[in-house]
Amino acid sequence: MNTYVKCLPCFVRQAAEGVAMATDDEALHEKVLRAALKTVSEMDMTPCPPRMGQTIHRLVRELSGIDDPYASVKNQFNQRALALVPKLQQRIQQADNPLETAVRFAIAGNVIDFGVSDFRQAHDIETLLEEALHADLDRGILENLVSSIEQAQHILYLADNTGEIVFDGLLIEQLPREKVTLVVRGGPIINDATLDDARELGLTELVHTIDNGSDAPGTLLDDCHEEFRQVYDQADLIIAKGQGNYESLHEADKHIFFLLKAKCEVTASIAGVELGSWVLIENDP
Amino acid sequence: MNTYVKCLPCFVRQAAEGVAMATDDEALHEKVLRAALKTVSEMDMTPCPPRMGQTIHRLVRELSGIDDPYASVKNQFNQRALALVPKLQQRIQQADNPLETAVRFAIAGNVIDFGVSDFRQAHDIETLLEEALHADLDRGILENLVSSIEQAQHILYLADNTGEIVFDGLLIEQLPREKVTLVVRGGPIINDATLDDARELGLTELVHTIDNGSDAPGTLLDDCHEEFRQVYDQADLIIAKGQGNYESLHEADKHIFFLLKAKCEVTASIAGVELGSWVLIENDP
Repeated sequence: MNTYVKCLPCFVRQAAEGVAMATDDEALHEKVLRAALKTVSEMDMTPCPPRMGQTIHRLVRELSGIDDPYASVKNQFNQRALALVPKLQQRIQQADNPLETAVRFAIAGNVIDFGVSDFRQAHDIETLLEEALHADLDRGILENLVSSIEQAQHILYLADNTGEIVFDGLLIEQLPREKVTLVVRGGPIINDATLDDARELGLTELVHTIDNGSDAPGTLLDDCHEEFRQVYDQADLIIAKGQGNYESLHEADKHIFFLLKAKCEVTASIAGVELGSWVLIENDP
Repeated sequence: MNTYVKCLPCFVRQAAEGVAMATDDEALHEKVLRAALKTVSEMDMTPCPPRMGQTIHRLVRELSGIDDPYASVKNQFNQRALALVPKLQQRIQQADNPLETAVRFAIAGNVIDFGVSDFRQAHDIETLLEEALHADLDRGILENLVSSIEQAQHILYLADNTGEIVFDGLLIEQLPREKVTLVVRGGPIINDATLDDARELGLTELVHTIDNGSDAPGTLLDDCHEEFRQVYDQADLIIAKGQGNYESLHEADKHIFFLLKAKCEVTASIAGVELGSWVLIENDP
């Protein structure tokens, strides 16, 4: 997809959020904001939004001198998600259909805002998991996903955010793990998961894990390194989490299942769903 | 007050909202957004936010060719507020302290979001009016306001938004009307009330009403015409509604009571109140 006019204010908001994460220095905030505003005013809208997100967050990192503005936030997100694992694992094990339940929880991982200051209380988590179990996902696509997993030889699992990636681990436990490669971002970008997170959370021991070599908040094929592109080319099934991966790959010539919450108006409209929906989309070229 | 770095993304959001009100033409949306982004990237942050708001919304109007993008919205807001008048008037008349009640409802007028698509249902209005009656306003300032009204010879009442201005009319009914001049904006700016609204709502028959000659979303003295500045200089009491008037006048050398909801982080922090608070502030130089 292209970038839309409606995306432009969002890039400015992201720059403001990013530099606020990086530093308290007001002069730096102004410097970064002015640069971001100018960059966005001149941007080429042909590429997809994650390309512009990459540019904006590189600018934040370069001008602030902070390599990973979201480092502490990402660590919090991971810890908060980790605390939920016993409950989630139990629910998956006891479910009539553990795979479908794990798929639903993986989407829930994209839904939860681990950044909400007081996080979700135990009660809210229960509500969210109930919502996950009853979310109106396309039954036909769910069945296609299950049969595709059974038939696939090479499954690529494209992760999205910290926190959320803990939930991805629970889904991967339900997959034929020897056929799966888990992919994280190649460098710090917003609160997305990187190889450091995967290692810290024990995912690298659970499944073959690589980074994609790119610091875009999505999967820009021409920006990924050779190792990633080889496994991508080889994959006969891709499971892709989150909006960034959807925005960058929804027109790709690959068999992809996208698991996400439609968090913005533009993406929701392209996916043909309501804003805020829990979405399972199949791309079968 | 100066403009803050945190205000910058808001100007971009306002440009996007304004042009979306003006036209469905995507090419125009892009043209306006790029121009607004560039303007904000180069802006002087010394003046107060309403100065930049004026610049941004002028740009929206000029590039879109639409003189009053919010025309239909403003009319809706007025009609929705008008429908509440009988209930509000009755509550004011039956109150132990009609003036204080009208002051509280005037702040409620700044609180209500007349733009919410389904508006507030009758039940919500009741809730809001209860909230208005019990909002934690500074008792000392309330008493100062009442005694200042009794003593003043020339009261200037600076209005803010359409819809809200209907509530202002109810407060003006409680004031010594012959001493009051109601002031509206000098031209279309966002959803702010102009002379057309005051006429349409019968306010020009209730009280001496002028416009300020300026199309800023606030009161920029050097941008207002001579007629306004004369009544401003003469006034020994000013009642000013909304954030824009607060942002432009809170450092003025005049006796002003500001009635508003603190709708953004920057204004709330300058006023020393919680975001979202109902506020009555006295400026007594």
